[in-house]
Amino acid sequence: MFFNFLPKEEKYFDMFERASENAIKGATKFRDLLKDYTGVESKVREIEDIEHEGDIITHEIFDKLNRTFITPIDREDIHSLASELDDVLDFLKASSDRLLLYNIKKPTEEVIKLADTLVRTTIETSKAIKSMRDMKHCQRIQQYCIEINSLENEGDNILKNAIAKLFNDRMDPLEVIKWKEIYENIESAIDMCESVANTIGAILAKNA
Amino acid sequence: MFFNFLPKEEKYFDMFERASENAIKGATKFRDLLKDYTGVESKVREIEDIEHEGDIITHEIFDKLNRTFITPIDREDIHSLASELDDVLDFLKASSDRLLLYNIKKPTEEVIKLADTLVRTTIETSKAIKSMRDMKHCQRIQQYCIEINSLENEGDNILKNAIAKLFNDRMDPLEVIKWKEIYENIESAIDMCESVANTIGAILAKNA
Amino acid sequence: MFFNFLPKEEKYFDMFERASENAIKGATKFRDLLKDYTGVESKVREIEDIEHEGDIITHEIFDKLNRTFITPIDREDIHSLASELDDVLDFLKASSDRLLLYNIKKPTEEVIKLADTLVRTTIETSKAIKSMRDMKHCQRIQQYCIEINSLENEGDNILKNAIAKLFNDRMDPLEVIKWKEIYENIESAIDMCESVANTIGAILAKNA
Repeated sequence: MFFNFLPKEEKYFDMFERASENAIKGATKFRDLLKDYTGVESKVREIEDIEHEGDIITHEIFDKLNRTFITPIDREDIHSLASELDDVLDFLKASSDRLLLYNIKKPTEEVIKLADTLVRTTIETSKAIKSMRDMKHCQRIQQYCIEINSLENEGDNILKNAIAKLFNDRMDPLEVIKWKEIYENIESAIDMCESVANTIGAILAKNA
Repeated sequence: MFFNFLPKEEKYFDMFERASENAIKGATKFRDLLKDYTGVESKVREIEDIEHEGDIITHEIFDKLNRTFITPIDREDIHSLASELDDVLDFLKASSDRLLLYNIKKPTEEVIKLADTLVRTTIETSKAIKSMRDMKHCQRIQQYCIEINSLENEGDNILKNAIAKLFNDRMDPLEVIKWKEIYENIESAIDMCESVANTIGAILAKNA
Repeated sequence: MFFNFLPKEEKYFDMFERASENAIKGATKFRDLLKDYTGVESKVREIEDIEHEGDIITHEIFDKLNRTFITPIDREDIHSLASELDDVLDFLKASSDRLLLYNIKKPTEEVIKLADTLVRTTIETSKAIKSMRDMKHCQRIQQYCIEINSLENEGDNILKNAIAKLFNDRMDPLEVIKWKEIYENIESAIDMCESVANTIGAILAKNA
């Protein structure tokens, strides 16, 4: 049985938990930066450090995977989960970096809303990841995944309104290019949480 | 032998056929919307519904794949085909949604040409998918795949001319951003049909 | 043992070498075109031919993979390496094509710097690929991979400065759109070399 593996295999779950908690940490730091837009450069650097920490965790998972023959979950699912959790922080970092690169003076209301949705999505994602240790939580996991899907829809609607606003306000085209890219990277980070949820769903289906 | 599987395995081919017919349906609805640009909102919603139908078919394929040990085609090829067919409609929906989001008042000649090429590409893709049921059709399948490749080249050329025109006409930069994105999403949908063709080609090679 | 395979299996390494040398050829042609910006159309066509040659090599690798049961490296790693090497030239071609499409009259300093970094990255990538034939070169391969990572960082910094410059100079928005896309495609080609390095790293880990 799937969840009936040897103690040392717990290590994958430990690593996924760390990766998902790290994503919450990055998203929270990003939202807080936008809400208190001071000392931007040093806060952006902190988010880069969190992303770098994520890279190390991902690398550990791949490394363990390359050295292990029998895994508690299908190899390709471990690979997908690790890549998707990694991508959440990659997209977040892309957004955060552009605040400096594009010399953003003041966050928009919409970017704060998107960042807030991302924080909530990473929290649900982490709950889903944590529940994977135990098969009995199957229904609870599905509940988290449904919540993640609904947050992704929320993010999508915020993005659509935010982009429509950029164009309708007939903003300076250079500002449109900047903000569109920042918004879309946050939305991609949220999308990646949904991919995590889909992968978890597939793992549940295989082990039902 | 590859095509010599148990009757129940026919189900994969049924699902791929449904997915490919659904792509034709979406592409046709989109081209017709552009040719008769009235009642845009409700037509865009219909395309969203078709895309959602596609999601359900994709989910059914993945679900079956997760519960099946022996498959008529290699597991990774089933996964690729399903994802690629799904992506065709995702890109189409992205284009279609932007007609509303960007408040497009009148389609360009170029977008109609691109949509028309997409319709023809989805039709050839569906023919290739349908022919996969029977190994004897190997040569015919290759013919469809060559046709899909040539339609992809056609789409690429239309896209290049369309984009050159946006820049040469020195259009309002905000309009350039909008149209470039709409065009590129249609081209990506066509590219995804080519990916389907490439996956089919690989399946043929393995089973030659 | 991994490097202890039958002579005929050397063919994979031959094909990867050809693919990596072809990438150097394309990148060099592109940098030289930018440094001597004359006869642009025919030079862009030559780069297209090189990219097409790359497609043929990729196809040969996939074809061989589909017909072989036992491979010297894990199947999924062969697939990744071939796709990533192919993507290097795809992104390069996208950049090169846009010189014509966007009717670029004069290269910027930044595009030349990026192209130069790409040339150096493809050279290190080719060295890493060539060293894979022999397990004893493990440490040397890692050295090449570290070098590729550092070139990718260099490229990233050039890109950031180049993009900041586009926006700070308050250039015509249409020019910003053009150059941003050209720069980002070169950076993506460099990123793909880094993906090759990561895949090689994973192969080493599995066979340590």
